[in-house]
Amino acid sequence: MADKLIIFDTTLRDGEQSPGASMTRDEKLRIARQLERLKVDVIEAGFAASSNGDFECVRAIAQAIKDSTVCSLARANDRDIARAAEALHGGRSTRIHLFLATSPLHMEKKLRMTPDQVFEQARLATRFARNLSGDIEFSPEDGYRSEPDFLCRVLEAVIAEGATTINVPDTVGYAIPELYGSFIRNLRERIPNSDKAVWSVHCHNDLGMAVANSLAGVKIGGARQVECTINGLGERAGNCSLEEVVMAVKTRRDHFGLEVGIDTAHIVPASRLVSQTTGFVVQPNKAVVGANAFAHASGIHQDGVLKARDTYEIMRAEDVGWSTNRIVLGKLSGRNAFKQRLQELGIEMASEAEVNAAFARFKDLADRKSEIFDEDITALVMDETVTAEQEHYRLLSLSQRSETGERPHAAVVFAAGELEHRAEADGNGPVDASLKAIESRVGSGAEMLLYSVNAITSGSTESQGEVTVRLQHGGRVVNGVGADPDIVVASAKAYLAALNKLHSKTERVAAQG
Amino acid sequence: MADKLIIFDTTLRDGEQSPGASMTRDEKLRIARQLERLKVDVIEAGFAASSNGDFECVRAIAQAIKDSTVCSLARANDRDIARAAEALHGGRSTRIHLFLATSPLHMEKKLRMTPDQVFEQARLATRFARNLSGDIEFSPEDGYRSEPDFLCRVLEAVIAEGATTINVPDTVGYAIPELYGSFIRNLRERIPNSDKAVWSVHCHNDLGMAVANSLAGVKIGGARQVECTINGLGERAGNCSLEEVVMAVKTRRDHFGLEVGIDTAHIVPASRLVSQTTGFVVQPNKAVVGANAFAHASGIHQDGVLKARDTYEIMRAEDVGWSTNRIVLGKLSGRNAFKQRLQELGIEMASEAEVNAAFARFKDLADRKSEIFDEDITALVMDETVTAEQEHYRLLSLSQRSETGERPHAAVVFAAGELEHRAEADGNGPVDASLKAIESRVGSGAEMLLYSVNAITSGSTESQGEVTVRLQHGGRVVNGVGADPDIVVASAKAYLAALNKLHSKTERVAAQG
Repeated sequence: MADKLIIFDTTLRDGEQSPGASMTRDEKLRIARQLERLKVDVIEAGFAASSNGDFECVRAIAQAIKDSTVCSLARANDRDIARAAEALHGGRSTRIHLFLATSPLHMEKKLRMTPDQVFEQARLATRFARNLSGDIEFSPEDGYRSEPDFLCRVLEAVIAEGATTINVPDTVGYAIPELYGSFIRNLRERIPNSDKAVWSVHCHNDLGMAVANSLAGVKIGGARQVECTINGLGERAGNCSLEEVVMAVKTRRDHFGLEVGIDTAHIVPASRLVSQTTGFVVQPNKAVVGANAFAHASGIHQDGVLKARDTYEIMRAEDVGWSTNRIVLGKLSGRNAFKQRLQELGIEMASEAEVNAAFARFKDLADRKSEIFDEDITALVMDETVTAEQEHYRLLSLSQRSETGERPHAAVVFAAGELEHRAEADGNGPVDASLKAIESRVGSGAEMLLYSVNAITSGSTESQGEVTVRLQHGGRVVNGVGADPDIVVASAKAYLAALNKLHSKTERVAAQG
Repeated sequence: MADKLIIFDTTLRDGEQSPGASMTRDEKLRIARQLERLKVDVIEAGFAASSNGDFECVRAIAQAIKDSTVCSLARANDRDIARAAEALHGGRSTRIHLFLATSPLHMEKKLRMTPDQVFEQARLATRFARNLSGDIEFSPEDGYRSEPDFLCRVLEAVIAEGATTINVPDTVGYAIPELYGSFIRNLRERIPNSDKAVWSVHCHNDLGMAVANSLAGVKIGGARQVECTINGLGERAGNCSLEEVVMAVKTRRDHFGLEVGIDTAHIVPASRLVSQTTGFVVQPNKAVVGANAFAHASGIHQDGVLKARDTYEIMRAEDVGWSTNRIVLGKLSGRNAFKQRLQELGIEMASEAEVNAAFARFKDLADRKSEIFDEDITALVMDETVTAEQEHYRLLSLSQRSETGERPHAAVVFAAGELEHRAEADGNGPVDASLKAIESRVGSGAEMLLYSVNAITSGSTESQGEVTVRLQHGGRVVNGVGADPDIVVASAKAYLAALNKLHSKTERVAAQG
């Protein structure tokens, strides 16, 4: 039987470190459930010691997830490790992931430690962790730029102390496939006890080669775990993308000869969920999950591809979750049809009350829009659950007008807890005026970092607009999402959703290592 | 001295084949000028024989470009080759690029020809082309899936007939770096006259490895030309991205030991121009040109990176054209300052009248927006030149209103040639209402394929919104772009710009091989 390649997803940890991608606990839980549905082997849920918020996220995910191993990152010190173990406590299958930099540059400039001190700390931290968990991963940060002799010494010691997975990160995205593959093979050959651990790769995409580097680490280097994220989310140019690396191993099984456990039909829904949650768009020419990745998904070149599919296609769109017929519901659809479609879309609602609330919004939308697509339902449910989460501010009504030669004007009525506010303002456009009106009452003082609009279904302006607003205040960055056929209303909803997140007491500062 | 790696850009040919990315002649010319500024060695300008529109594009670019070689694609038959030669006639440095499929699948299913017939046609076509041009490139389509013995026979024959560049495409994006590199090395070693041609790579990104495959073709295979596109634009998941492959060769000069002539400071402006022209967004975590590719470009993590830059950064943002201070002009800036900034941005205006028109719009914008960024200027000029191009429809005024519980309503006044139209309509939102009002008078019958909004400058709603509308009618796909601080006005402008393109007589059907 072929070896198995372990898929380690770090969307919720390394992915969340992207400026602007921080998520609430409920958002992280929702994504973790989708990763479990994808049959990801290991889910890195966060960095428990970095904040109380992240601790709670790791704890909630460890409790909720049964089929994947749940992992927390920890610096190589006793406090971080103890916090990680505490957050993971009671989970069905858990892992502590230690990291400590080993490159000359990072040891000198970031850690201000000598190599001997780093060696000693790595050894002692692994020993401490091994007493708390049987599943320990160790990452020498900036490993690929580390001095090989020193790295061998450190890795041999941590394996001897009981590390079960050794991950060699290309932290700055500097590697070239054949060099990275040989680097890992060389480590494995030189370290006497290397066969006692599973070897892992973790690549960044700064030069566009994260997937190829990861696969060279597997094929040439003998690694059997790949660390990756949905949509390649991650700091700077991001991490190795899960969908690309998985489909490469599956499509080129002739070359790699490895099994992957991923249920690929959940890839596109996972991609959409992560994109909607973070507000990070997926470009149309993105491999596997981009709107153009399969010519016939774009609706333009359908017949060309259907004529002789394999002439131009090496994967099938339906295998990665692109559904071909997505018109599902309309005005006359009942609650059961709606609920069934939710299940088919892999959306779990916490309670019947939530289903009812979502169904009410669905009927409201169906009054205004004749064809309801899967994307509409996802947006509507996201909107609902995000709002339900901390519904301090709620939009009650909005009226706006603009006319050439005059300043656009908006009047907004919204609830703040028990109070009802009415506010008016002018702005550069009707969206600007509406948001200024809200802000004039709320006085959040938040800075807007991002405002983006996507048409949720086809390209048409009849479809719902989905607006993402990203606000920054007091060191926190939050995303609010709102959907409505009226783009001004969607914008006001998104702004209020973001304000709700800022208003909530939960600390949700992204884990920054 | 190190070998030179030839950069062959095919944004205007293979990139344009993306569903929805077709461009007008003026748009292509503007991008070609930016590619020349980038110091691209070869610009593939189009596929002259595919349509009269594409013929005119190739001709115009061959006339305008002096510093890069201008290339036209041609099927391997006398008519296509003669059309390509005719379009290129009078250019300073030109190339004809022949292609003919050589894989069993493509020969049997697409060409319905025997291998012997393909061999003969390749040979004769190259001979015919060689009499018309001294610079001939030959591509065996789907080359990587071709049978090596047969491929050697064909390539030896076309080199003997005078082909000066041999390009081995991975047409379906199926390759793995080490396999693709060895494939090319094997061809070069087996073909007796292989040293008479420059070898070239052309990779697609379906499995996320186009850049790594291209570079393996160079390093392992000995290729000295890379075919690529700005932003990795191209069919399906796109082509090898120019910015990634160039920055990899520059950043890892220690490994590749090759010179590239690209002036990298023009990369980000080129990326923006292509994105704005096609309406294809660049995702924030895209390598090199994504908004997050450099942490400090996002404005959030500035100080972290500045503290110890090389700890996390292998390239400098300014080297690829990310400017740090982008507030340039305001209400009081004069025509000269504006004109100078245009030059600094690499924007060439055809006439003083065009500069005047753009300046008038600039003043109009400055009245409504206190800080004018480079992106605003680019948008404003794009808007202007696109409009100037075929200004049949022009927006005169717009008024709209929406109020909770009522149907949004819009009234639009626009010019159609000499006539002035006034139209009103309801819609799902104010944007929908405005576009329905316009359509009710124009009656284009066009189908909307895409509607997208980007905030041009920061994320804020005070900034200009840039709307892209993609329409399809009678087999043609066009993009219209409009910018305005009022998103509804920007949408109406974009819709009219797209209608102008549909209205124009120029045939602009994308070249489909």
